[in-house]
Order: sequence, then C-alpha cells, then structure tokens
Amino acid sequence: MPRYPHHAQRVDQLPGSIFEKFLPKMREKGADLVKLHIGDSYRQPPYPLPISDSFTRENPYFNRYCNTLGIPELRRALAQKLSEDNQIAADPDAIMLTAGACSALNIGMMGLVNPGEEVLLLTPCWPFFVGMVKMAGGVPVQVPFYDRLYAEPDWDIAAHLEQFITPKTVALYLNTPNNPSGKVLDEAQLQQIVAVVKKHNLWLISDEAYDGMTYDGRAHISIAANREIAAQTLSIFTFSKVYMFAGLRLGYLVADPELLKQLNKVMVHQYYSPATIAQQMMIEPVQNRREWQDRFVQECQATRNRCSELLKADHHLPEGAYYLFFSIKDYLSGRDYWQVIDDCLDAGISVAPGSDFGQDYPDFIRVCFAGEPPQRIELAMQRLNRVLLG
Amino acid sequence: MPRYPHHAQRVDQLPGSIFEKFLPKMREKGADLVKLHIGDSYRQPPYPLPISDSFTRENPYFNRYCNTLGIPELRRALAQKLSEDNQIAADPDAIMLTAGACSALNIGMMGLVNPGEEVLLLTPCWPFFVGMVKMAGGVPVQVPFYDRLYAEPDWDIAAHLEQFITPKTVALYLNTPNNPSGKVLDEAQLQQIVAVVKKHNLWLISDEAYDGMTYDGRAHISIAANREIAAQTLSIFTFSKVYMFAGLRLGYLVADPELLKQLNKVMVHQYYSPATIAQQMMIEPVQNRREWQDRFVQECQATRNRCSELLKADHHLPEGAYYLFFSIKDYLSGRDYWQVIDDCLDAGISVAPGSDFGQDYPDFIRVCFAGEPPQRIELAMQRLNRVLLG
Repeated sequence: MPRYPHHAQRVDQLPGSIFEKFLPKMREKGADLVKLHIGDSYRQPPYPLPISDSFTRENPYFNRYCNTLGIPELRRALAQKLSEDNQIAADPDAIMLTAGACSALNIGMMGLVNPGEEVLLLTPCWPFFVGMVKMAGGVPVQVPFYDRLYAEPDWDIAAHLEQFITPKTVALYLNTPNNPSGKVLDEAQLQQIVAVVKKHNLWLISDEAYDGMTYDGRAHISIAANREIAAQTLSIFTFSKVYMFAGLRLGYLVADPELLKQLNKVMVHQYYSPATIAQQMMIEPVQNRREWQDRFVQECQATRNRCSELLKADHHLPEGAYYLFFSIKDYLSGRDYWQVIDDCLDAGISVAPGSDFGQDYPDFIRVCFAGEPPQRIELAMQRLNRVLLG
Repeated sequence: MPRYPHHAQRVDQLPGSIFEKFLPKMREKGADLVKLHIGDSYRQPPYPLPISDSFTRENPYFNRYCNTLGIPELRRALAQKLSEDNQIAADPDAIMLTAGACSALNIGMMGLVNPGEEVLLLTPCWPFFVGMVKMAGGVPVQVPFYDRLYAEPDWDIAAHLEQFITPKTVALYLNTPNNPSGKVLDEAQLQQIVAVVKKHNLWLISDEAYDGMTYDGRAHISIAANREIAAQTLSIFTFSKVYMFAGLRLGYLVADPELLKQLNKVMVHQYYSPATIAQQMMIEPVQNRREWQDRFVQECQATRNRCSELLKADHHLPEGAYYLFFSIKDYLSGRDYWQVIDDCLDAGISVAPGSDFGQDYPDFIRVCFAGEPPQRIELAMQRLNRVLLG
C-alpha cells in the first residue's frame, strides 16, 4: 500500500551520497585531509559585498557549499526552538533547511506521492500546493474545511474527512494558522485529524508557515507535538512570515531522520541546498526571537482589529496569519465576479481572487493586511467598501 | 513528436499568474495602488543583520518576494554581459534567475521531458544530471564523449551522436568547459552538435557553469551564439564558479521568452524564486567583472600547471574548469578500485570516484585543484603520487 511508511518510487532512482560510507574515516582524518573531491573554490569572492567584515571572518565558509541538510549550528538552534515553542522533539538530524516552505512542500510531494495517488487538501488553501501535487503526478482532492469551523467549531471533522478517503489516498495537507481563512485549529480539532491520519496510515503534511502568528493569546499547536503521529508527519516552517524575510528564500522541514535522507535526495537533485549565507544569517534571529517577535504579532493584531472594524462587508475575524477571506456574493449588485476584481483595480486596490484558494471559493476574495503600512491599509478598506457597498 | 518546440505535458497542468491579464492596469495605477493581493509584510526584519545600512537603504525590498523571473536590474546587467562576453543576443525577458545552475538544469528536465523520453548525456558529466533526467521520468542515455576529443580533435562527432538517437530522443546535454574532463569544445566541434540538434529538433541543454574559466587564451564559445539553434537551446550559467559564491545558490537560465514562461511555472511550484537579496548583491559584481575575474582564472591556470607537473600518473592537461580527470587502471597494483579510494583517504586526500561521472568511467578519479590553497594542493599531489606509484 503506497502510504506511510512508504515513500514515492521516484526517490529510489536517485543516488544518495557516495561518500556516506567514507564519512567516519574522513572525520577521523580531520584538518589534515586535503579535500580534492568537492568542486568548489577555497577563495572568498574578490569583489566588494555589502556584508560586514566581522560576519565573513566569523563565517569563513559563507560563500561555499554546505551540508545539504543545512548547517549544523542553525539546525541545533532550530531543534531548541522546536522543543521550546512547538513541543516538537526533534534532533538536529530530523531538520532539513529548504528554499522556503514552498520548497519543503514540493519536496514532500515529490518524495511521497506516486503518479495517480490522491492527496487530500483541506481548503481554502495556499494556491501553489495544488500544482505541486500535480507536478508529482498526484491527484489533488479538495476538501472544503477551514471556513466552516468558524460557524461550527464542534463539527465532526473525522466523519467529513472519511468521505473523501479512497484506497488511493496517501497524504493529507493541513495548514494552521490557515492562509487564507485565518483559522487556527484547536487541540480537539487537531485530535480528530490525528485519528484519521493514523487510522489510514496517511502522510500528514503540516504547513506551519504562520507559526507564531496567532492573535488574542490563542496558541499555535504543532500537530507533530503528538508523538503518535510524529513519524508520519512533515512539519514545515519558514523565515518568510514572522521573520519578515521572504526575500531570503529559507524555510525548514522536520521529519523522521530516515525519511529525511530520502527527501534530501530530491532536494539535492533540484537545487543542491538553500544558501549557506542565508542559513548563517538566521542563527542569531532564531536564538533571540523573544526580543522582537511578539511586537510584530501585536502590530498585526492591531491592524487586523482596525481592518475588521472598517470593513463593512460580512467576514470572520481571523484568528491567525494576516488575511481577511470572505465571500462577496452579496455585494455583486448584478456585476460579474471578475468585474468586481476589475472595479477594485480601478478604485486603487488589488485583491487575490478566491478561486486561487480552492474550487469551492469562486465568490471569495483574499485581502492581505500586512503588505503595506497601516495608513495605506485603512485607505484600502475605505476603497473596498465603496466598491462592494457603493 | 515530443521534441522542440514542444514542452513536457506536466507543465500544462500548472497554472500561470492569474494577475498577468491585470498587469497593464496595475502598472497604470502606479504607486496609488494598494496591493492587498500579495501575502507579504511591508516591514523590514527588526533583528540585526550583517548587511550594510547603505545596501538596505538602496534596496528597500531586499527582504520581500520579487518577480519570479528575477529582479529587472540584474537581468539587464546579465543581458549586457551575455551580449559582450558570450555573443548571446538575449533580452532581459529571456533570462530567468534560478537557485544555482543545478536548479536551472532540473527545471529544464521537468519542463521539457515526458516520462519515457530519452535524453542524450555527453559524458563524463556532472553526476546530478543523471538523477534529474530520472526525476522527470526520462531515460538518461550516456554517450562517451569529452575525453576522446583530447586524442582525436577531428573525430566525426555527428556520426557518433547519430548512433544514440532514437525516435524517443528529445534533448541533448552539453557541458563545455566540461566538468570533470576539462575539455573545452572548439567552433568546429560545436558546429557538428548544432547540425545534429537541428536535424532532429532536439532541445539542447547547454551547461556553461564554467563560463569564463578557460586556460592558455582559449575562448569559451556559447553554443546559443549560433542563432540557428538559439530558440531550442537552454543556456545555463552560475555564480558558483568564477564568482566564487556557491554558498549563494544563484544561477541563471537563458531561453526563448515564451518557453521561459512555461519553465517559470515549474520554478514557482518548486521554490517560488531564488533569493531577492542574493540577486541584488550580484548586480555590481556582474557589471565590474573585468576588474577581478581574470586574476582568478590566471591563479587557477598556475595551479593547474603546477598540479600537472607534479602528478606522475598519466593525464590530459585540462583546457578549462578546475579538475584533473584520469584513469587509474594502470596504477592499481593488484588492488580493487575502491581500495585505492580508501588508500587515498588513509594518505590524507579525498578524490571523487569516476563512476559518479558516467558508466564508462569506473576506473577514473576526479581531482579538484581549486578547493584548497595551492600549497595544500601540492601536498595532495605528492600524497596521490605515493598512493598510485608507491
């Protein structure tokens, strides 16, 4: 059966490191070993760089290839962070740095899904995941989910999910805090997902890009904190959201170390590793996260409150992430949906269309309230009200 | 027929940007448009970074998502460089920045090869390319090639290649200057490849990772300078070699702009884009390359000369790149091949085994002469002589 603990067949065609068997001897030789096997230059770039001298002195390998799982110092810092903030017990060898959460999700699909196998996508969901399932040859099965939890927090999630499971289902894609709905799942809701995943031996793809971005004192619960399913879960994080560094393209994937070796083969054949220098730059921000992280989340919460007050269209107050996601069906005033999107542009605001986030949301729009300064967001809400309510 | 100008079917399943049709209106609106459609934060990272203040002031978007083809300023600088150094006529919209040449090669295979189709790999070649063909479901067909050109520069290349072409062949992988053999193809040799590629409508994957790294005044000729086949060629470059910044994970792919839009869909679903900040950091080094590039190549040439003098085993003098690649069959002295690799480690040197570079090179080893300072490389050559010749 093509489910946990089995990975995708394409991975078996990829070679691992031929040097793995020689590693003990190489370590034993230490600094005396002259490494002629790597294709790299020992020189540092001879042209000016906007990086401080103290950084390049302290990180003399900043310009060179690194361990394809990621540099050990950052993996150690992240292991400690995962233990303290997420109650995930992960050794550094259970962590792989990736080019954003985006890459971790793609590697997950390429590494776990064979052509023709089905992946359950709880929707509304991040648009690119649908294409990732298809690129692996898999079949995305969209399960309308998050928005309904606002109205029915005690909904029988397990019974709902069971309706979509077939003998071909191999994985389930979960994203809490959810982009775009802002829903944050609680312990009881997650427990129902755990039961379904366990019962059917599904792989669980836990997209935690908005880790740390919850409002009103609500906790973000990492589902892999539940040891019953940790071995069949890929927990995926990023430096693009609370770290405010999408332009660094860095994220990480936490999984069983043996599975991670297989997934690493996929990454090495896609882009080798994420940037060494990006990883070195993020060690201190991870260690010092308590000094700066809360203030950002508080500012986002204040903007969320102000947006929600200003917006006259019906919507749920997001519990996490930084989006409003709501139906505009009652505000079309005889217009076609796409005419309203065009009217928004005429009024000076661009919004993301609901169809991007799943087949069940053609009447919705997503509004990001963190991409521009608060005064611009307030202006945008006034413009949006005029387009929707006249 | 699944050849040029047809791309792989998997690409048709991937959506492009839904905003493309709205771009003219968005541009027209300019700064007044409040962008609510992107999921990003307007804030800069609030934690200390080792990047100069003047850089972050001049590049205020350093931490944000960028155009998925790459930032326009770098693409313009590269278009000028390609015109001046490579005689490749490429507009900025024919250039896509990627996470190293590695990613450009993977995207090429995912974007052009359907399951069951064959790709000709001229060998010895860069190890990961074999796995990339397999990951796309393709069949790698290894064609022994570069090393023979040292002995027979006037070899009938076209007749040799024709023997490997079947109705399923869709692409050919060329790499000059070649890793690992150091062979640099001349105009007459390239012209024969052009003829074969054109005759059979093959896609041509031109891996030019060692662009600029040629010795003894030899020119590196970019095959896409030949306009007859430019439209069916992917020319692939990197910042990992002459730019000495493998740890930045940045490269670029030059292709027909319409094809590039399709390949960009693959990249977006793999890792969105390479790092914004990495691209911004490389604008000036590209523009000022004449101030620093030649000296590095001269230093490599001096090390090559010294290595070749010291090495007592039979080998060809590499014409480009920074490797020696030669058979050790005559130096086994009754030992198994892998015993010699192990003897090297015992003597304090690690070398790359020939089987990594193609099925026809099980008796070869590759030695990189740029990965450590010259005095360490000289020590390594003495150690290697002792292992091979006693």
